[in-house]
Amino acid sequence: MTMQRALVLEKQHELALRDIDLPLEVAPGMVRISLHTVGVCGSDVHYYTHGRIGPFVVDAPMVLGHEAAGTVMEVGEGVTHLAVGDRVCMEPGIPDPNSQASRLGMYNIDPAVEFWATPPIHGVLTSEVVHPANYTFKLPDNVSFAEGAMVEPFAVGMQAATKAGIKPGDTAVVLGAGPIGTMVALAALAGGCARVIIADLAQPKLDIAAQYQGIIPVNIREKNIVSEVNALTEGWGADVVFECSGSPKAWETVIDLPRPGGCIVVVGLPVEPTVIDIASASTREIRIETVFRYAHQYARAIALIASGKVDLKPLITETFDFEESIKAFDRAVEARPSDVKLQIRMPQR
Amino acid sequence: MTMQRALVLEKQHELALRDIDLPLEVAPGMVRISLHTVGVCGSDVHYYTHGRIGPFVVDAPMVLGHEAAGTVMEVGEGVTHLAVGDRVCMEPGIPDPNSQASRLGMYNIDPAVEFWATPPIHGVLTSEVVHPANYTFKLPDNVSFAEGAMVEPFAVGMQAATKAGIKPGDTAVVLGAGPIGTMVALAALAGGCARVIIADLAQPKLDIAAQYQGIIPVNIREKNIVSEVNALTEGWGADVVFECSGSPKAWETVIDLPRPGGCIVVVGLPVEPTVIDIASASTREIRIETVFRYAHQYARAIALIASGKVDLKPLITETFDFEESIKAFDRAVEARPSDVKLQIRMPQR
Amino acid sequence: MTMQRALVLEKQHELALRDIDLPLEVAPGMVRISLHTVGVCGSDVHYYTHGRIGPFVVDAPMVLGHEAAGTVMEVGEGVTHLAVGDRVCMEPGIPDPNSQASRLGMYNIDPAVEFWATPPIHGVLTSEVVHPANYTFKLPDNVSFAEGAMVEPFAVGMQAATKAGIKPGDTAVVLGAGPIGTMVALAALAGGCARVIIADLAQPKLDIAAQYQGIIPVNIREKNIVSEVNALTEGWGADVVFECSGSPKAWETVIDLPRPGGCIVVVGLPVEPTVIDIASASTREIRIETVFRYAHQYARAIALIASGKVDLKPLITETFDFEESIKAFDRAVEARPSDVKLQIRMPQR
Amino acid sequence: MTMQRALVLEKQHELALRDIDLPLEVAPGMVRISLHTVGVCGSDVHYYTHGRIGPFVVDAPMVLGHEAAGTVMEVGEGVTHLAVGDRVCMEPGIPDPNSQASRLGMYNIDPAVEFWATPPIHGVLTSEVVHPANYTFKLPDNVSFAEGAMVEPFAVGMQAATKAGIKPGDTAVVLGAGPIGTMVALAALAGGCARVIIADLAQPKLDIAAQYQGIIPVNIREKNIVSEVNALTEGWGADVVFECSGSPKAWETVIDLPRPGGCIVVVGLPVEPTVIDIASASTREIRIETVFRYAHQYARAIALIASGKVDLKPLITETFDFEESIKAFDRAVEARPSDVKLQIRMPQR
Repeated sequence: MTMQRALVLEKQHELALRDIDLPLEVAPGMVRISLHTVGVCGSDVHYYTHGRIGPFVVDAPMVLGHEAAGTVMEVGEGVTHLAVGDRVCMEPGIPDPNSQASRLGMYNIDPAVEFWATPPIHGVLTSEVVHPANYTFKLPDNVSFAEGAMVEPFAVGMQAATKAGIKPGDTAVVLGAGPIGTMVALAALAGGCARVIIADLAQPKLDIAAQYQGIIPVNIREKNIVSEVNALTEGWGADVVFECSGSPKAWETVIDLPRPGGCIVVVGLPVEPTVIDIASASTREIRIETVFRYAHQYARAIALIASGKVDLKPLITETFDFEESIKAFDRAVEARPSDVKLQIRMPQR
Repeated sequence: MTMQRALVLEKQHELALRDIDLPLEVAPGMVRISLHTVGVCGSDVHYYTHGRIGPFVVDAPMVLGHEAAGTVMEVGEGVTHLAVGDRVCMEPGIPDPNSQASRLGMYNIDPAVEFWATPPIHGVLTSEVVHPANYTFKLPDNVSFAEGAMVEPFAVGMQAATKAGIKPGDTAVVLGAGPIGTMVALAALAGGCARVIIADLAQPKLDIAAQYQGIIPVNIREKNIVSEVNALTEGWGADVVFECSGSPKAWETVIDLPRPGGCIVVVGLPVEPTVIDIASASTREIRIETVFRYAHQYARAIALIASGKVDLKPLITETFDFEESIKAFDRAVEARPSDVKLQIRMPQR
Repeated sequence: MTMQRALVLEKQHELALRDIDLPLEVAPGMVRISLHTVGVCGSDVHYYTHGRIGPFVVDAPMVLGHEAAGTVMEVGEGVTHLAVGDRVCMEPGIPDPNSQASRLGMYNIDPAVEFWATPPIHGVLTSEVVHPANYTFKLPDNVSFAEGAMVEPFAVGMQAATKAGIKPGDTAVVLGAGPIGTMVALAALAGGCARVIIADLAQPKLDIAAQYQGIIPVNIREKNIVSEVNALTEGWGADVVFECSGSPKAWETVIDLPRPGGCIVVVGLPVEPTVIDIASASTREIRIETVFRYAHQYARAIALIASGKVDLKPLITETFDFEESIKAFDRAVEARPSDVKLQIRMPQR
Repeated sequence: MTMQRALVLEKQHELALRDIDLPLEVAPGMVRISLHTVGVCGSDVHYYTHGRIGPFVVDAPMVLGHEAAGTVMEVGEGVTHLAVGDRVCMEPGIPDPNSQASRLGMYNIDPAVEFWATPPIHGVLTSEVVHPANYTFKLPDNVSFAEGAMVEPFAVGMQAATKAGIKPGDTAVVLGAGPIGTMVALAALAGGCARVIIADLAQPKLDIAAQYQGIIPVNIREKNIVSEVNALTEGWGADVVFECSGSPKAWETVIDLPRPGGCIVVVGLPVEPTVIDIASASTREIRIETVFRYAHQYARAIALIASGKVDLKPLITETFDFEESIKAFDRAVEARPSDVKLQIRMPQR
């Protein structure tokens, strides 16, 4: 164990920048990474403000942060695809490779997965971390650390786009233009959609999404989303609808949006069980897919960023020094409508 | 138009055996069929007792019956795969082949489909009917008319089994052991499942399903279905769950039944929008499929019956003469728990 | 029948610009279209130089041309989605909507399909044509006639990309950088690939493909394609390989290119049966998909062009007036390596 | 290491029943199993007669046997789903759970897999073996050791049936009625096919397959398989064709058997690259799947045997005592046409 300076959530509402003892031994198959950039995620903020997410309760001090990029400092025995000095980003979830779900290729839904900054597992708003090489991905030269730290939220969009089974030229709808909705819209476009209609109440969020070619914003304060989708698809409906708002109210219209034989991908999770008109879905044989984090998406996400098909840089709203990270979290708590992603840059030796 | 004796639903609660004028001209691509056996379906009964199903209202006299088998009497121009004298069964829905949905291969969700005994389209509890040859299927010698008239409800099970994407050796759960639940269970077994756990409150229904090898009955008055499924799958869950009860209450447990990455197929439709715990479904990335009637299932269903893999004969509870068909409907209204399918045999010349 | 000036292939090696009698009656469901732009396809040229393609023999004068865009002049009964004056492009194949293949959604492999400029069916290098409205697609304002006439060859690429089942961020290889290989590469990129490695012997063809971001050219005179793909994928292999060369020699390496569990899509057809090392494909469980023309791709292709995701304009090498169309064909026979697509512009009244 | 009596292939053509030193330490996650029944596989016999299979050369003494069932004698740390005394069967391949292929769920095509009785890995024709618990499967009470030892070859059939993507009621063709062809036919039937047409030159093999309901034998010495399939499918073709003969000659007809949009699954591997008419496959958009051993099939296979849907017992031709195992191998070398599976029973203490 080694003492490291870290952003520690002591308990609900209480953050501290202080030293904490963390394990840094590099076992076979592992690498030690010096952190460079860490994004602030809604779930980090939610632990700060609520002290819990569902069954996960912060009942001991926990380091926050799980959207991370850095540099490899040490490489464990048997690791061949990484070398000291490599710039990398990391998947924050570490599954049991021998679980039933992992062996089937669905390691994201292995119940034994250990996920950074999910109690009781520490996150990475600190100097260094030891991580499995298999979940550590080299960044190409043309992908910055800041972009590397965006791969985690973008991977959520990639998982949704993958589950949708997009066919080239599909029309998608995204409900909710927050950070995740925007990531999903970009993944859907990169993943084959010709156009993505994105709906929200907040014009500043829509304006950010609408910077991208192929994204059509709809302000649902002013327009009816069902009518808009019908007008744009000659009454046929959307091939895929991504529900990213998590709002029970969204479920009053989401069923009306897909075409016959279309698909709804549930990304935003309502806090409570939700009223769904499943009979209406049945008359058009709509398929509903659900997603949980992501599996096998990092390498694909990095490839799309490196090739220039996906540009996440416009979504980085502001970058804070590590010493200002409590300020960064307080800003995230009082987020402006135009805030997409706040990042924290770690001190580099 | 030709006068024919038919079972006519004059209006809600009022059935009559009487003559009615029906068109019998055989256009190109059509065949004229003499009816032999017609099954009594829950929807026929519902029009009798309620005068409507959702938006479909009986506001003019309508011939009932859509589960039918008979004999080809006349063959229209251009029909090559059928000949006079062929024993056949018929799909009751006639889609527009040029609609968008039909061209994509999903003719069942073509909104323009005309479906027997769905207002204002007449059914076939009468002597003869003219029907498109494309939706008329020859019965092999070892498949009886009675079995031919069972193809329609079995096709619903086939559609559900197809949508499930069953892999050989899967374990399925069917909620609801009524006629449709039983058909789904048989289709799931024939379609590759190793075993089907079927759940109901009514022991007589479970006893009928349990006659079939591979079906495991669970009386949910006595046992908890989630515990039973976990015990039978070593805590992993079912690969596929078919919700066939249509009960909102079923949705309190249905989400807990599939394995990680498993599937729920919605066959029974709740009358009202239903509370669904979609967040719980997401933690296991459950897929939800919905079905509407069936497409491309008749030939497959007949092949399974002809090969001996599926035996529907034990599900035919009782057969009535056409002249007793009002009695048959009244029996269906007051169905015994052990009633699965009642059929009506038409007079043969 | 109406006399129209047309480019007629009288027999092998003999083209004539002359009047010919063609039917222009507009039956229900049909539209009459004035042609604006028609592309010259390899198959048109092959009928000119060889008088046949496989079993299809030119034994009577036949109008050439099947890559076409124009303007609606008259609308048949029952047509609702098109109006006089609409700018449109057309699918050249007309299937029987009641065939088994069409009903399953695979109208492209309906053996009864009638395809423009495939003997004995006339093509559209003429003034006007009558066509089914269902296979006629409105062009958005920002898609030109020239682009509209490119939809046909691009649809071949779309079919290949669709069959591949691309996942977002995949790496693809395209063997052959001719017109079809380039179309496939663009469709693969638009359809979700992060990058497409394209291989050919001719540097001018590679230079044209390499204009597009995300396409990586490999000149196989200079480099070994297997080594290049391994280097670019860290030894894992490509997710999808599109064989577009039609060369038997390509089959010596194509099997070595996909990753374990990857896919080969066969687009280029070898003239003779080909030696394939299927045992080698088996050790990595490679899937081989074949494609035949396209189905359901026009609307999707147009959507991708209209949204700006796909730019086909750089592939239009030269445009000829209709009166010069024999010259255009002679140029196509002696194509330069940098020629991609030649088009013919029809006289507009 | 512990001395155990084993059937050792000393070198090509030379078998010995003798003692050999084998490791029996039970590490965490492992179990020690006492062998009960071991099947004789074609690959075991091929190492005996040829001393090699492709790149795998017997250059040191090797214990044969990989189709095995037995009893758990000792359970390693962390193993929860098995207990001492459990009757089990075992997957003979041990992959690296951290390889790229394994993490994607395709552990069968992990190049690092260690497979029993594939040089230099010892097989299990011996007293005891230590094996990963994850690849050891409990046999239900109604599945015998002899059936347990049949799970391995049946899993090959299951993999083929799974890759085919069978839809309920499909018609399949199997070319080759040897042990693997028969296993594939049974898996295809259990996996949803209504009927399986099986073709071979040897009537005794066909007679064995034809014992099973739903299997239609065709002796291709007497009948043309393409005509037979067309007659049985009204000219449409088979949904799935399993090539199990490994004969290059089979590839002259295999392409003609599937329906438009149908599938060929390659199970039998030709020794040399084979001439394939890929252009003919393209006109019907045929998909070709290849398989390599199996992944995730054991539990499914056992479930099908336990439920009574699959009966492998008629395929066990003869059982030999371990002390007669050289005789068993010599019989396998000179196999009679009616021989399907020979098994060896190990001495039980």
